[in-house]
Amino acid sequence: MATLAIRGGRILRSDMTVTEADVLVDRETGDIVELGAELAGDEELDAHGDLVMPGLVNAHTHVAMTLLRGHADDKPLDAWLREDVWPVEAALEPADIEAGAALGILEMIKSGTTTFADMYFEIDRTAEVVERAGLRAVLGHGAIAAGKDDVAARADIEESVEMARRLDGAAAGRISTAVMPHSLTTVTPELLELAATEAHDAGVPVHYHANETVDEVDPIVEEHGQRPVEWARDLGLCTEADFFAHGVHLDDREIDLLARTGTGVVHCPASNMKLASGMAPVQQLLDAGVPVGLGTDGAASNNDLDLFDELRDAAMLGKLAAADASAVAAPDAVSMATAGGADVLGLNAGRIEAGAKADLAVIDLDAPHLTPEHDVVSHLAYAARGSDVRHTVCDGTVLMRDREVLTLDEGAVMERAAARAAGLLERAGV
Amino acid sequence: MATLAIRGGRILRSDMTVTEADVLVDRETGDIVELGAELAGDEELDAHGDLVMPGLVNAHTHVAMTLLRGHADDKPLDAWLREDVWPVEAALEPADIEAGAALGILEMIKSGTTTFADMYFEIDRTAEVVERAGLRAVLGHGAIAAGKDDVAARADIEESVEMARRLDGAAAGRISTAVMPHSLTTVTPELLELAATEAHDAGVPVHYHANETVDEVDPIVEEHGQRPVEWARDLGLCTEADFFAHGVHLDDREIDLLARTGTGVVHCPASNMKLASGMAPVQQLLDAGVPVGLGTDGAASNNDLDLFDELRDAAMLGKLAAADASAVAAPDAVSMATAGGADVLGLNAGRIEAGAKADLAVIDLDAPHLTPEHDVVSHLAYAARGSDVRHTVCDGTVLMRDREVLTLDEGAVMERAAARAAGLLERAGV
Repeated sequence: MATLAIRGGRILRSDMTVTEADVLVDRETGDIVELGAELAGDEELDAHGDLVMPGLVNAHTHVAMTLLRGHADDKPLDAWLREDVWPVEAALEPADIEAGAALGILEMIKSGTTTFADMYFEIDRTAEVVERAGLRAVLGHGAIAAGKDDVAARADIEESVEMARRLDGAAAGRISTAVMPHSLTTVTPELLELAATEAHDAGVPVHYHANETVDEVDPIVEEHGQRPVEWARDLGLCTEADFFAHGVHLDDREIDLLARTGTGVVHCPASNMKLASGMAPVQQLLDAGVPVGLGTDGAASNNDLDLFDELRDAAMLGKLAAADASAVAAPDAVSMATAGGADVLGLNAGRIEAGAKADLAVIDLDAPHLTPEHDVVSHLAYAARGSDVRHTVCDGTVLMRDREVLTLDEGAVMERAAARAAGLLERAGV
Repeated sequence: MATLAIRGGRILRSDMTVTEADVLVDRETGDIVELGAELAGDEELDAHGDLVMPGLVNAHTHVAMTLLRGHADDKPLDAWLREDVWPVEAALEPADIEAGAALGILEMIKSGTTTFADMYFEIDRTAEVVERAGLRAVLGHGAIAAGKDDVAARADIEESVEMARRLDGAAAGRISTAVMPHSLTTVTPELLELAATEAHDAGVPVHYHANETVDEVDPIVEEHGQRPVEWARDLGLCTEADFFAHGVHLDDREIDLLARTGTGVVHCPASNMKLASGMAPVQQLLDAGVPVGLGTDGAASNNDLDLFDELRDAAMLGKLAAADASAVAAPDAVSMATAGGADVLGLNAGRIEAGAKADLAVIDLDAPHLTPEHDVVSHLAYAARGSDVRHTVCDGTVLMRDREVLTLDEGAVMERAAARAAGLLERAGV
């Protein structure tokens, strides 16, 4: 067995306590083998003075949208999509997807994220980057019916199903998939049902956007006489494996329903603030036992992929939403960003324990903004940032050591992304 | 004239445009002398590829509270103050103030903040650290009447006045002062009036907390039949020089009044979220022409002093508060953090132009999360973080060069703060 040992650090357990322990990893299976004192490995990572935490899970993004970071901000959702996002997306070439995905994946490795769930186009190209960059990913082709005739809309769903079947298990198992109809309002009911049936036949989840704005709630209530989550359940989109992004506007019945079905919700607080979508009832979801993860959404509505920002935003905004300063406490925010996200995605990760995937972020605590150290979990929620991550490990492989990314050429990735972004805007004529 | 030249960068102008220019600084006066091409200085700072922006202005904090960072989170304001903050503050010794101030000032230098306004105790000790660390500061003794008899309460206000008179102009003019009665509800009307009269006699502003929570509004409306800002104006606390923190719960009349008087509001979005205080009407304040700056508040309710977080929070939360994704746009957020804050504090800083104070932050843009570069101002608002600051200059002196702080011993400051924090909690018995 080829091993990796992470030596001398303290580890964050899933009950949010901290213990001194080395971590021994089987590099071939990518699993954590043992926690304990003085564990030696063929390869070693120094973690003296550091905190070893589960790698962060970004459970909803559109990673190649990093090319649009800062391209158009501060606009209402509708105008932003029509004037700035859709024209550019129509001009996207596969090489753009590859360049944008590499940029986003580089950013995630540098900020301690080890898994991301991605809904976008040309997902094959994203899969290639995931393969060589070493992250774990749940990938899906985002299928949309709006603006397409019936034949094209059905073909798009079928493409999403085909991609999900083909890529599931790729990159030595680091890639899993989902069928990803865009949302409950941009895909027809027939095709939503088809997506659910085909996904579950293939043994993969369905992932979609739901209840992000009131415009994703009111039309469904008017047309179908049901709340969106009830309607989605009737269409077959709310099994325990399925998960949707946002869930900003949810009523009590919908929250109860989600708790019963075990359907996951990915909370995207930065995107919800930036697009003025509203405040998700996160404490209520947690109280009800709904599985909740965190997502950055695309970089165009965030504008970074640093999950430490999401952690902090979730804890902060959750208090405002509940009008209660004790809501969404630091341990809950950190849990959502780790085990919570892994559970939503159906992965055996997000926890530091024997048998779990060795997806880890090692945090350098020796910094003024992390001093004094009354409470490390508080620091993770409220004071740490992506730049505090020292090493990133995924599937037992070291992806970043002492802030040097080992699997991607940082300068080349940034240069290529900048060039593709400039060309993309030129082609799109915006 | 001894000069400093910042060479090869692009500068952020106060109209939020970006131009290539070197910056020439007179190190003796601490002023910017000239902007232009190929400017040489006795001392030089490299800024190739970087953005030279005005140093950030943290217009409301309690800097020594860094010792309480992470000591108690996720509690309602009232319980938090009674159980966690006040018992500890009662045990504070002057050496704690010095250690906590040094830690906070170190953190601010490392994240590009060049000026802070501080309300706390033992302000002499904070002034000593400011003197040697090289920052600019507006300092004041926070005077509180609650829990004191009349004599002690009056003595506390008199101490605030005496400190303001004595320290104004210290540290070669880098320190200015304000008289700082704690808030409109924790100081009696007579003493608030006294504070205003004495402050204005001394030629310094009054700084206080106002309209942070509904509990700071309703009792004043009930007792005096006026909104708090109207009542403060009648007590003499709303001149053009004066400024207050928070202003979360303001009605239209109060906003109009502030626009007429020119009284400054310091928006503290992170603290307002973390304590579930509410959302300030920032876009309304800006539309009305009220001077608005940004503040971190104390590290115990934030939990860091990185003004880039505040910038982002202000832009994000401002949209939710206005239910409008175009509210508090990136340029407005960056302005509040620089020129806006300087204007609130009455300082000739926050702008890169000849004659203004040479308070500057040089930002390294060569990072994945700041790529591509469609819009630098968007990056400052939504994607940059304190760790992107490469050099910090205040009053014409380089305080940090290539991330090495030159005026404080980083390791010693952290070690001392950690030791004082541990001793403080032990003495306080919490």
